[in-house]
Amino acid sequence: MQITRFPDKNSWNTLLQRPVMDTSTLEKKVNDILQEVRTGGDAAVRKFAAEFDKVTLDNLQVPSAAFAAAEATLEPALKAAIQQAAKNITTFHRAQQEKVQVIETMPGVQCWRKSVAIQKVGLYIPGGSAPLFSTILMLGIPAMIAGCKEIVLCTPSLHPAILYTAQLTGIEKVFTIGGVQAIGAMAYGTESVPQVYKIFGPGNQYVTCAKQLVNKSGVAIDMPAGPSEVAVLADDSCVPAFVAADLLSQAEHGPDSQVVLVTTSEKVLTNVTNALNTQLDALPRKGIATAALENSKMILVKDMDTAIDLLNIYAPEHLILACEGAENLADKVTDAGSVFMGNYTPESAGDYASGTNHTLPTNGYARAYSGVSLDSFVKKITFQQISPEGLQNIGSTIEAMAAAEGLEAHKNAVTVRLKQLEYTGSLITD
Amino acid sequence: MQITRFPDKNSWNTLLQRPVMDTSTLEKKVNDILQEVRTGGDAAVRKFAAEFDKVTLDNLQVPSAAFAAAEATLEPALKAAIQQAAKNITTFHRAQQEKVQVIETMPGVQCWRKSVAIQKVGLYIPGGSAPLFSTILMLGIPAMIAGCKEIVLCTPSLHPAILYTAQLTGIEKVFTIGGVQAIGAMAYGTESVPQVYKIFGPGNQYVTCAKQLVNKSGVAIDMPAGPSEVAVLADDSCVPAFVAADLLSQAEHGPDSQVVLVTTSEKVLTNVTNALNTQLDALPRKGIATAALENSKMILVKDMDTAIDLLNIYAPEHLILACEGAENLADKVTDAGSVFMGNYTPESAGDYASGTNHTLPTNGYARAYSGVSLDSFVKKITFQQISPEGLQNIGSTIEAMAAAEGLEAHKNAVTVRLKQLEYTGSLITD
Repeated sequence: MQITRFPDKNSWNTLLQRPVMDTSTLEKKVNDILQEVRTGGDAAVRKFAAEFDKVTLDNLQVPSAAFAAAEATLEPALKAAIQQAAKNITTFHRAQQEKVQVIETMPGVQCWRKSVAIQKVGLYIPGGSAPLFSTILMLGIPAMIAGCKEIVLCTPSLHPAILYTAQLTGIEKVFTIGGVQAIGAMAYGTESVPQVYKIFGPGNQYVTCAKQLVNKSGVAIDMPAGPSEVAVLADDSCVPAFVAADLLSQAEHGPDSQVVLVTTSEKVLTNVTNALNTQLDALPRKGIATAALENSKMILVKDMDTAIDLLNIYAPEHLILACEGAENLADKVTDAGSVFMGNYTPESAGDYASGTNHTLPTNGYARAYSGVSLDSFVKKITFQQISPEGLQNIGSTIEAMAAAEGLEAHKNAVTVRLKQLEYTGSLITD
Repeated sequence: MQITRFPDKNSWNTLLQRPVMDTSTLEKKVNDILQEVRTGGDAAVRKFAAEFDKVTLDNLQVPSAAFAAAEATLEPALKAAIQQAAKNITTFHRAQQEKVQVIETMPGVQCWRKSVAIQKVGLYIPGGSAPLFSTILMLGIPAMIAGCKEIVLCTPSLHPAILYTAQLTGIEKVFTIGGVQAIGAMAYGTESVPQVYKIFGPGNQYVTCAKQLVNKSGVAIDMPAGPSEVAVLADDSCVPAFVAADLLSQAEHGPDSQVVLVTTSEKVLTNVTNALNTQLDALPRKGIATAALENSKMILVKDMDTAIDLLNIYAPEHLILACEGAENLADKVTDAGSVFMGNYTPESAGDYASGTNHTLPTNGYARAYSGVSLDSFVKKITFQQISPEGLQNIGSTIEAMAAAEGLEAHKNAVTVRLKQLEYTGSLITD
């Protein structure tokens, strides 16, 4: 890791710059696939599966018998772990449900908002080296709590843990489709795959590009994507071996992962570096982690206020506060996806099982975006009901503003009602 | 308005189709302007203001003296109306504040989330025929309640009501900049205009395209845009003159506005048509409203269930329920931006003063997007704190899942801690 000591504030932006992601060169190719799926449906999906994934797909949908078979092959300990994680994630996301609260802003003017499920959602789980069943929990559980009517899952991986987790979460419509064709199938619908209103989930640069393109044509997506990242703020109270383990757990994600250590202590720099070297050797994904660490940074700053200022500007996806007074420091965090406090709160707890969601804004998006939550699966529809008396109370306000904006028909929608109330005075006598 | 009677369900999508908005032909031109503002700063902003708006801008920022001068010219009745609306909007949006709720998902595993303001936001208010000061209330008030540190307002209109409303809302940084150059200035920052993390507000197709492009480069935006629209569901209990007035208040927005009447009553079709013709003649914006009505639809359906099904598929920005049992029907609405219940709740109440937000999802986006609310100005950051005992409770769950996903470093971040706890057993004895 590159070490920078006491960087000048003017250099922070450059120091903390992330690699620029540009998928525009892929756009033409990805768009062609999307359009072919749009018009060709299942046949196009099968064609691209054969071309890119070298698989022949008969039924696109996973038959229900496959779920029981998958469950039978899964180790009991893993099943128990997935169940425990599901329980915690359910507890945390269920607490995000909002009660309807009717607000009377003026006498007779009642306003409220109600969370209503997005009726049709699509989840994408990539294939590749690791079966990301944990992401099914993170997306499927809030979708079920929200009450989404149609939940579609597309994944090229039929790993038993994927099927078991889908079943546990209550997702019935699982399709063996990957890549751009999966995003297209969910965005536009095919003979087999229902069309959805919002698409969630991680993916490679082709999938990311496909999500951007269907978003442009009106399908909502969870959030913009970027490489995963962690920042650790550590002082002399940290345990260097824990900090090193946390940095490595991010670094093993991919060679483009971002890892940043900010500290007020020269000793921490030395001890974490030593612990990193020791732990790195034992990792199966050592090559990936080493590549990620080469682009990563250790930054020594003069005090905790400077550290927090710098970290807020960086806006990390994950922020670990391995230092004394983590509670007070957490109050000063304005820009981060998720914050892990103290020496016994590793990021991997949030990645899997503590209950918080692991789908978080990377790439500085934490400045303006939240991670996935129950909110991501609902719309908050506003309602209002005005009584005749209420309209008499608020009417002149609306009329004056509409007239000043030059919108006479807006004004008239009130005037016509007020006149009728005046005429049929009985309605409002009390 | 075109009348369709008892359309077959298979024809609904075609019947309810909205005009396709395609800004891709503008992209090159808009992108060139954005890039020139990005590199040229204030000088580029001035150049485009001269070229497109035919104005010479000296100071880009409105001087503080201008606000007092604007207030002095404003009629007291209009000021009082704006103040009343501000009060109601504040009441409704303040009720959206969320208390932090710490959830212990397992003993020793505490998780919570906290709403933190997006630190820097930009509001855009277009010029044109009407001074849209109401939109300043709708965006500025939740931004202030959220606690956004930097609130920037760009508008080419220095109408006194605009300046007065900005001042009332507490927005100090107002810039006389319009169009694509305003979006570019806020997205990238110039010598005068601070860079922001999220941009809100309506605009023409150039502004819409500019917002899409800066969004692609990482700046968040409020929501995708489309022409404004209303759907009215009316039965024999409606007052045809009120329904006609509501339809016209939407139709006067622009020739591309969408207006839909759904009813179970042939009599309502006749009576609303007659009332429309009478009211239309009196409108100053008759030409615009007439053009909008030509593309608009009246649909007769056999019963209320069919009506609600059809309206949920349409997903209107505004939905007026001018019928008996509006409360029961409202429970069945799954897809709409904002719902107005009963004969005395005109859409213009929500447009200006009842308290709900008027920045709402158009173009069917209500299927997956919410209108602007306090949520739009905050990120919900998750936090977690795990005690040593907590990690011993949850540790094996994390280890099993990380191992099954092939992410050993994720597992090791837990293992290294559990081992240390085992070794220094005193920490966990009780």
